[in-house]
Amino acid sequence: MSKDEDFPQPPDLDQMPRFAGIATFMRLPLVSDLKKLDIALIGVPCDGGSTNRAGARHGPREIRNMSSLIRRVNPASGIAPFDLCRVGDVGDAPVNPIDIADALARIQAFFEALAAAGVVPLGAGGDHLVTLPILRAIATERPLGLVQFDAHSDTVDSYFGGQRYTHGTPFRRAVEEKLIDPARTVQIGIRGSLFSSDEMAFARQGGMRLISIEEFYELGIDAVIAEARRVVGDGPAYVSFDVDGLDPVYASGTGTPEVGGFSTHEAQRMIRGLRGLDLVGADVVEVAPPFDLGGVTALAAANIMFELLCVLADATARRGAG
Amino acid sequence: MSKDEDFPQPPDLDQMPRFAGIATFMRLPLVSDLKKLDIALIGVPCDGGSTNRAGARHGPREIRNMSSLIRRVNPASGIAPFDLCRVGDVGDAPVNPIDIADALARIQAFFEALAAAGVVPLGAGGDHLVTLPILRAIATERPLGLVQFDAHSDTVDSYFGGQRYTHGTPFRRAVEEKLIDPARTVQIGIRGSLFSSDEMAFARQGGMRLISIEEFYELGIDAVIAEARRVVGDGPAYVSFDVDGLDPVYASGTGTPEVGGFSTHEAQRMIRGLRGLDLVGADVVEVAPPFDLGGVTALAAANIMFELLCVLADATARRGAG
Amino acid sequence: MSKDEDFPQPPDLDQMPRFAGIATFMRLPLVSDLKKLDIALIGVPCDGGSTNRAGARHGPREIRNMSSLIRRVNPASGIAPFDLCRVGDVGDAPVNPIDIADALARIQAFFEALAAAGVVPLGAGGDHLVTLPILRAIATERPLGLVQFDAHSDTVDSYFGGQRYTHGTPFRRAVEEKLIDPARTVQIGIRGSLFSSDEMAFARQGGMRLISIEEFYELGIDAVIAEARRVVGDGPAYVSFDVDGLDPVYASGTGTPEVGGFSTHEAQRMIRGLRGLDLVGADVVEVAPPFDLGGVTALAAANIMFELLCVLADATARRGAG
Amino acid sequence: MSKDEDFPQPPDLDQMPRFAGIATFMRLPLVSDLKKLDIALIGVPCDGGSTNRAGARHGPREIRNMSSLIRRVNPASGIAPFDLCRVGDVGDAPVNPIDIADALARIQAFFEALAAAGVVPLGAGGDHLVTLPILRAIATERPLGLVQFDAHSDTVDSYFGGQRYTHGTPFRRAVEEKLIDPARTVQIGIRGSLFSSDEMAFARQGGMRLISIEEFYELGIDAVIAEARRVVGDGPAYVSFDVDGLDPVYASGTGTPEVGGFSTHEAQRMIRGLRGLDLVGADVVEVAPPFDLGGVTALAAANIMFELLCVLADATARRGAG
Amino acid sequence: MSKDEDFPQPPDLDQMPRFAGIATFMRLPLVSDLKKLDIALIGVPCDGGSTNRAGARHGPREIRNMSSLIRRVNPASGIAPFDLCRVGDVGDAPVNPIDIADALARIQAFFEALAAAGVVPLGAGGDHLVTLPILRAIATERPLGLVQFDAHSDTVDSYFGGQRYTHGTPFRRAVEEKLIDPARTVQIGIRGSLFSSDEMAFARQGGMRLISIEEFYELGIDAVIAEARRVVGDGPAYVSFDVDGLDPVYASGTGTPEVGGFSTHEAQRMIRGLRGLDLVGADVVEVAPPFDLGGVTALAAANIMFELLCVLADATARRGAG
Amino acid sequence: MSKDEDFPQPPDLDQMPRFAGIATFMRLPLVSDLKKLDIALIGVPCDGGSTNRAGARHGPREIRNMSSLIRRVNPASGIAPFDLCRVGDVGDAPVNPIDIADALARIQAFFEALAAAGVVPLGAGGDHLVTLPILRAIATERPLGLVQFDAHSDTVDSYFGGQRYTHGTPFRRAVEEKLIDPARTVQIGIRGSLFSSDEMAFARQGGMRLISIEEFYELGIDAVIAEARRVVGDGPAYVSFDVDGLDPVYASGTGTPEVGGFSTHEAQRMIRGLRGLDLVGADVVEVAPPFDLGGVTALAAANIMFELLCVLADATARRGAG
Repeated sequence: MSKDEDFPQPPDLDQMPRFAGIATFMRLPLVSDLKKLDIALIGVPCDGGSTNRAGARHGPREIRNMSSLIRRVNPASGIAPFDLCRVGDVGDAPVNPIDIADALARIQAFFEALAAAGVVPLGAGGDHLVTLPILRAIATERPLGLVQFDAHSDTVDSYFGGQRYTHGTPFRRAVEEKLIDPARTVQIGIRGSLFSSDEMAFARQGGMRLISIEEFYELGIDAVIAEARRVVGDGPAYVSFDVDGLDPVYASGTGTPEVGGFSTHEAQRMIRGLRGLDLVGADVVEVAPPFDLGGVTALAAANIMFELLCVLADATARRGAG
Repeated sequence: MSKDEDFPQPPDLDQMPRFAGIATFMRLPLVSDLKKLDIALIGVPCDGGSTNRAGARHGPREIRNMSSLIRRVNPASGIAPFDLCRVGDVGDAPVNPIDIADALARIQAFFEALAAAGVVPLGAGGDHLVTLPILRAIATERPLGLVQFDAHSDTVDSYFGGQRYTHGTPFRRAVEEKLIDPARTVQIGIRGSLFSSDEMAFARQGGMRLISIEEFYELGIDAVIAEARRVVGDGPAYVSFDVDGLDPVYASGTGTPEVGGFSTHEAQRMIRGLRGLDLVGADVVEVAPPFDLGGVTALAAANIMFELLCVLADATARRGAG
Repeated sequence: MSKDEDFPQPPDLDQMPRFAGIATFMRLPLVSDLKKLDIALIGVPCDGGSTNRAGARHGPREIRNMSSLIRRVNPASGIAPFDLCRVGDVGDAPVNPIDIADALARIQAFFEALAAAGVVPLGAGGDHLVTLPILRAIATERPLGLVQFDAHSDTVDSYFGGQRYTHGTPFRRAVEEKLIDPARTVQIGIRGSLFSSDEMAFARQGGMRLISIEEFYELGIDAVIAEARRVVGDGPAYVSFDVDGLDPVYASGTGTPEVGGFSTHEAQRMIRGLRGLDLVGADVVEVAPPFDLGGVTALAAANIMFELLCVLADATARRGAG
Repeated sequence: MSKDEDFPQPPDLDQMPRFAGIATFMRLPLVSDLKKLDIALIGVPCDGGSTNRAGARHGPREIRNMSSLIRRVNPASGIAPFDLCRVGDVGDAPVNPIDIADALARIQAFFEALAAAGVVPLGAGGDHLVTLPILRAIATERPLGLVQFDAHSDTVDSYFGGQRYTHGTPFRRAVEEKLIDPARTVQIGIRGSLFSSDEMAFARQGGMRLISIEEFYELGIDAVIAEARRVVGDGPAYVSFDVDGLDPVYASGTGTPEVGGFSTHEAQRMIRGLRGLDLVGADVVEVAPPFDLGGVTALAAANIMFELLCVLADATARRGAG
Repeated sequence: MSKDEDFPQPPDLDQMPRFAGIATFMRLPLVSDLKKLDIALIGVPCDGGSTNRAGARHGPREIRNMSSLIRRVNPASGIAPFDLCRVGDVGDAPVNPIDIADALARIQAFFEALAAAGVVPLGAGGDHLVTLPILRAIATERPLGLVQFDAHSDTVDSYFGGQRYTHGTPFRRAVEEKLIDPARTVQIGIRGSLFSSDEMAFARQGGMRLISIEEFYELGIDAVIAEARRVVGDGPAYVSFDVDGLDPVYASGTGTPEVGGFSTHEAQRMIRGLRGLDLVGADVVEVAPPFDLGGVTALAAANIMFELLCVLADATARRGAG
Repeated sequence: MSKDEDFPQPPDLDQMPRFAGIATFMRLPLVSDLKKLDIALIGVPCDGGSTNRAGARHGPREIRNMSSLIRRVNPASGIAPFDLCRVGDVGDAPVNPIDIADALARIQAFFEALAAAGVVPLGAGGDHLVTLPILRAIATERPLGLVQFDAHSDTVDSYFGGQRYTHGTPFRRAVEEKLIDPARTVQIGIRGSLFSSDEMAFARQGGMRLISIEEFYELGIDAVIAEARRVVGDGPAYVSFDVDGLDPVYASGTGTPEVGGFSTHEAQRMIRGLRGLDLVGADVVEVAPPFDLGGVTALAAANIMFELLCVLADATARRGAG
């Protein structure tokens, strides 16, 4: 079925039903030789930045488990990512559940090795703080554009008397460290009660484009997609999908659920709408399996990951890697 | 309350609250004398065709359990099915969990007895393969029209090195055996990643009308209903409702969930829109209680079954049976 | 953060994360001196009126638990209720799980004490019958207007051979006792199969405005809000939110789920649309935690409660209490 | 397999696997003609006496569901109850979830009809208060002996300011009404913290034999059985099994769990040890499915019910009914 | 009921059933004035030391919730702790979910305030690392004896490249800091596979008495109690109960479950056997509600806490505080 | 830590906590070159033989998941299996969920390849029928002795009108095919109601030694171990562990639970007692995750698998493989 032998594929269904076999991402082979890959799927089992309900450390495993249901071709876009690029599971980044600073360093080093090998990363968290070391590893030349699906802006300055590295702060740090360009950043799905009425000041004043869930429904999906594409523009961009952007009925298994979010169908359509952007990496974060119900959140995350893979593979192939 | 004494009714609420009593479909009496019925509710506890997550064998019991919440009158259409027709629970079709060929034969024989008695069947699966022996029993004169609500077309040729009878193949077999007319078949809600890009070739080339979930949202419900009615036309028709057509938040308890489906409200409206077609049977399949959460899927299935019963009873009464 | 020291506030997040501390409503202090409050949050752990699945007696505790996730400011309306009014948790009304008549008397006495102190009540049930003693305590001068979010009209006359006080009867009793004005009553989200086709006769003939879920989707939210405001008008009004008005995927943890309801996002928008009415009390009822899944229903109820608090605080402050 | 055609049997496994078919007790036929039975299995879905966690109203249905796993012969005693006696499921006693007094009257009337037909009752609750109307129906000639398996003595006088009919009071009422003989009553498994140190005074001073869980382990099972047989003696006796006598790991699905109870294996052995007593009825109570986990409690209750059936059938056959 | 008005008591059951009211420990009043207490019940919602499954931060709330089922008198020992001492809930110690060092400092300060007021602490974790700051606060004069119920010795030196403060290291640190006397330390229930065969070297060579689960069953409970009393002797002692000492069926809701542990009944008996020791504090740790099933682990922990309270109250009263 | 580099080991904990990384059995490497192994851990995701509740097809994955908690050394026996033998995860045997005959052939072929390479198999089912093709692959020279832990004898002749290959028949087939020697077979834990009183005739008359749960408790564990060793004797032997031998509280996640079984602690002791037998293979079967609760059953199975591995590694090393 594959383009050629070097393109990793899931096992043949006639020998191995989807419920069988080791649970890697999308039933792909485990690959340790980075030279054999264009795109790597990576778990980042770190939730040391969680200020609320913990458990995202268990996310990668359950996303892998539910991703067994994923097949090979996207029915809406026709993209067959495993034919466009060499895609494999490279396992989990090393972490440290006791020391968040050390964990960030370990994660960054792992993604730097991927970047050095020219491999495009698609990560599965972990809490949203894991996006920071990923960006540190790949945004080495200039700030990236960012499409962030999320209920929260995650641009708080600090918590708990000065903690600057939590899952509520990554994008403030990323702006400060010039990893992302606020003027090329769009945040979609923002909602949830606020600690104070000026909580979004950094994001808004810094030039980020915030689309609240109210504006999302007012504009409609097509206009939201157009706006996201306008903001991000032609330069290299990253996509970060926090599952709490989804309504809790699609993603109850998360640390900070907020009622009134968008649906998985709407998420699928929005990600498909990013096709053509110069995407250089992506992640899905904040799946907390201990709070999940029957794997519904992990299933959503696995499908989101597949949608992200399709547009990443398309972008990667266009850049000449495929 | 009933038209007359021969029309079976749920027990009087003043004596028996809905949580009490034996769990039959919609709290109706168990009826063994088929001459006393116009429409039979039947469980088909068979999941031998499941290639993925099993457990639909437990579907009928949990659908019965949750169907206790169903009352007597449809609030939207005003149809009171137990007044239009004599409806009862006839128990489960015999099955064989070890040998799928034998199971299909047993199920077919059971539905043939119903057909011989002139009783219209409304089945509760079981996996989607159970629709095949039901069609064999009732489509004896000419191919039927089909309205299929489903995430999957279920027209694969074979699996696992030649297995031709699985829950992914019933409608291919049904076309081959001239049980359904592909030109009078509409499949609504199709989605989910594909094993290969030509997976739908048999369905499309054979003349079936596939409405993907993307087209569903583009057309809107009223247009989808109109299209379904146009395709099926005036001849006798069957309705098969696979609960994986629903979004997983409405139906996580199923073997092959696909994110991004329609809602129960949309399903209710579509089924109500089939009123007036010459419906001769229907089923609800793929409820897998071991994967269900708090009975939510079984509750949805019970309500879908009631909606199907309303339009079946209306059609049956118009044909003069009531 | 607060207006002044007399305005109770949740504990400082820097000392006490949201998962920590005693689970009061919205992490507010327990207050026993009613003079210190403008608005009281009250649990009413009574489900003696339940004719179907029980368990709403456990509602207040789980709503309190999930309400820890609520912060201070409404992102859509900008209302900061704890700055507008003095709001606190006054604990639970006393109940009697064996004798419903005694329970109603105890609940009424508790709310009468609040009313005597001029404190506006926001209750958390309990089954829907608890709204009756609340109305008896506060509708002492003239019948109130009512905005009821619900799948059911709850205007049945009696059950089980003459039981006149159940969760299916409170608004019939409230009309009979002149606690609410049927001409100023709107019920939104009505659906679900009926015991008989004239089940809504009392409500409709008495002048209540019923908006079925079908009409809800036909009109659209803005028109529904406008209609609700038109019906209720300028006089004092009460809001009662039965979580079974929500679709079961948002609120499976309830006694009588009905598929095909509205979403939490739609509920949020509708409640926000009530701003400006002369609201004098509100409740959220029918959360039954033993049937809930991962606290999703309680989370929805806590957010609904916060939305109700915002419009109640706005109304209370406008009346001069803040 | 059966003694003769009049002895109801579960359906033939070769046609109907245990997961299939209507969920009656032990897959037996529903029987409405009491003349055809020696022993009746009855559901009593009433929890109006619950002062703590509710939900036992849902017990009969889930016990029926899990009882499908029960086969025909007791492996330890060799008793084959369906060959000794004519046993059937007679459905549920009528109840009233709003009015406990009316519920007690309805239940009593139902069991009086059974008694009038000479049928021995084996009930499944429902909370423990349902034992009272059963005893009223069958202890018409003289007080019965009682073997009670329970964490609680259930001999409180009243609750909530005078409620005399709750699940904490049935055996005090039964003594007062001379339905049971305290001198022939043994309570096994008593434990759990007390409201006051004289809580057991009525039971002990009235002559009941209480075997606390501490004494249970000190004596050992054989001595406990011997003591129970000594207390009850030769006269007619009733067995009431509250599942909270079991440790919560065997029966978490109950209203008032107490850690540190006996195991299902120990329960099985104790009930088998009652063989030879003149047993005239029995029940299993306090299964609260909304608090159950995967049906474990209902499975335990179904097996307890089968053990009770075996010794009841043995006693009934010896009395000449079989 | 109480000795006098200064002795806090749970609310009167006749007004407030156990499922009602704010969930404090054992339904006791919240007390902020430490002078009014002899024994304080404290939550310590900190799991920053967890190297495995997280979630113990949610422990205090769920233990409080299930502790509502606790009444007033211990049925086995007759101890009525609320009559012996003034006992209240003082809320949670402040924590910091991002920085474990800061969290330890905050917790220590909170317990130092209790110690300064002469209040005996009974804590509810949190992971096992929280015992360390508690010991730092109370073991200021000389090393304490320790009775530790646990599957693990928790005397590892460091993890993850040098982390010295994790839930696997507290008792090594406590020995190093001279907070506990290894010669007066007994660890009961030790089991579970080992990382290396010399993992217990520090504990054994330092003089701790380890009773593996194998030795536990060989000796029998009475001998284990005697041995624990012998080891601890007459000096002041602390009791630390890690719920993973229990078998996972009693405590699946914990971070590092090990099959083959003791039962809650055995735990109750062992704690009762500590009566008479000079106990100066105690805790229950490692309840991780996200992994719990139906609250069974929290219920066990609440009962363990009550048993600990009884022996603590007895010791405190004997020391003259009551 | 390992004997030498060729001995596969779990990843270093300092880099990869146990919750991280791909879920292989015991966190061992995936190995495809059979020459590098002495003992292979294999998943067999086949439940086509299940006549009751399905779902064991999902067993291997969840056992792998929970086996992450396993460390390196057995604390009771001191056996360090990864130092004695080269142990790895070889993935899953190929299966066929639609055709049980084909599935058996595929499984047999996979185990024949292991046998040809001289690798000792330790399998994880799947239902109990999977033991048959394993035995066909390894019992090629002479019948093996068998130690079977199970609630059921699994020696039925046929089901459902002649089905000879189900999870109730493997050991009858194994005797007929001379794969096991009935005189060297011991079945431990037998219990559960029977379809007929002569159900055990084949097993008993054929010379198998059945130890019912009643006899198990009567004899005591040491005598049971001695009896098992006596029966099996010195020849090569296989161990098959059906998790339904455990009490349902330890293993609710199984197809045919029977109350009153042994504990995991008792299972551990029994398996340890098999040390010294000439063990040539083993399996753990009938884990059905859809019916499991919080992974408790899979955790038990993972620990059982580790105990089996320890005695298998000891036997293998003694035979000269290590």
